[in-house]
Amino acid sequence: MAIDRRSVLAAAGLGVAGSSDSAGAQTATASRLLSGRPLIVMLAYPGMFPLDLVGPEAVFSGLGTHEIRQVWKSPDTVTSGSGLGISPTLTFAETPETVDMIFVPGGALGTLRVMEDPVVLSFLASRGAKARYVTSVCTGSLVLAAAGLLQGRRATSHWVARDRLADLGVTPVHARVVEDGNRITGAGVTAGLDFALTLASRLVGETRARALQLNIEYDPQPPFHAGSPEGAGPEVTAMMREAYKPFIAEMDQVLPRARQRLLVA
Amino acid sequence: MAIDRRSVLAAAGLGVAGSSDSAGAQTATASRLLSGRPLIVMLAYPGMFPLDLVGPEAVFSGLGTHEIRQVWKSPDTVTSGSGLGISPTLTFAETPETVDMIFVPGGALGTLRVMEDPVVLSFLASRGAKARYVTSVCTGSLVLAAAGLLQGRRATSHWVARDRLADLGVTPVHARVVEDGNRITGAGVTAGLDFALTLASRLVGETRARALQLNIEYDPQPPFHAGSPEGAGPEVTAMMREAYKPFIAEMDQVLPRARQRLLVA
Repeated sequence: MAIDRRSVLAAAGLGVAGSSDSAGAQTATASRLLSGRPLIVMLAYPGMFPLDLVGPEAVFSGLGTHEIRQVWKSPDTVTSGSGLGISPTLTFAETPETVDMIFVPGGALGTLRVMEDPVVLSFLASRGAKARYVTSVCTGSLVLAAAGLLQGRRATSHWVARDRLADLGVTPVHARVVEDGNRITGAGVTAGLDFALTLASRLVGETRARALQLNIEYDPQPPFHAGSPEGAGPEVTAMMREAYKPFIAEMDQVLPRARQRLLVA
Repeated sequence: MAIDRRSVLAAAGLGVAGSSDSAGAQTATASRLLSGRPLIVMLAYPGMFPLDLVGPEAVFSGLGTHEIRQVWKSPDTVTSGSGLGISPTLTFAETPETVDMIFVPGGALGTLRVMEDPVVLSFLASRGAKARYVTSVCTGSLVLAAAGLLQGRRATSHWVARDRLADLGVTPVHARVVEDGNRITGAGVTAGLDFALTLASRLVGETRARALQLNIEYDPQPPFHAGSPEGAGPEVTAMMREAYKPFIAEMDQVLPRARQRLLVA
């Protein structure tokens, strides 16, 4: 089995020197795109849930075969619902017409906002039309659907939103990772790890995907069995449904409008 | 079972509005510290492995009982080895003398660099001396040890570095999460999820910790059983040990110097 040393070095986090110079990080944009490697663009938006993006990034950044960028309208830091700031490393305008993969993370109210943002939807639709893979984790699948990229497909989402994919002409599937052609979607948040390792095995083969799993020591030992409504039981699930009420109420407003836009388009 | 609505709303990512204004995010620092909630400070440094920090942040940000900040010397974006940028939300100088928890993520060469940075070590030593919990994930435990916060304790780290904790007077333990008094350390990268849920159950009780696990849908279904050297097998493990060689070589230089500094101090 041939080992691509660059790929494995990347997996070990040794590929690129760290820098604390934010201006440098932004001005490096153009030169780093000269790497010539196929591009994975991960949408980074205000109100996203950071782990949805950073979980897959931990796997993709070790591929060694791709350049990974966080994309947004501007290079300004985007802030998650919890206040964590992530700095985009590529703007929509700088993004080539053809990329290897687009990826959309989920979130709560911020996710519903981008579902109604014509600049975001137009960006995703144009890059999604040509990308080799069109992907999401968590409620990111609602955004892909709003951009017209999942109609007639099977897909998944966070458990609280999964069935609502049907409102947008998508067939909801209760699974950790769902593949329908080149559309690959993951369930809620931490499903991004299983999603990314599945994709890694497509991109670089199973042996390297296993090395990437070892690199992030993904040998899960959760202290509880509460990662699904079935496992968490009715009391805890009801607690979370109660917590999600403002999100669900807003989703009830946004989904019919998104559906209407898809019908008109 | 009483349910704290604020806590559960925070878990659902609905607690704080998202913003794309980085300047606003930084100037909000002082006012948000007025929340009066106990503080969890997560060290964000150049070359860290972002998932080490963002995994636990996904759990801690749902507690609803704590204010979570990413701390560094300055508010300038720190860039990981893979190019992902995270914006600190608090500087060392702005950090109160007494915080509830300090947390240090791991990484590779960038982690070895902060082990020799007197400003970082002095910050960690001062806050660690008074914090209720002193914690890390992955090679972050090497940084805690270099700051003099783990001597004579049991701790864990990423599998490739774990045994080297002994060089700094720490007893290495092969476990996903290791508790020794108020020192709580997690193994490599994704162990941060198990670590954070364990801590959440200490902070807010098991029922809410289970709700936080459901929120991030942490029902792991890795496509391979390769998350430990034992599971990955000798070929894949050797591949990663080869990839880590530059890190191991640098660690061989840094650890004796760190040990010497601890003996002198």
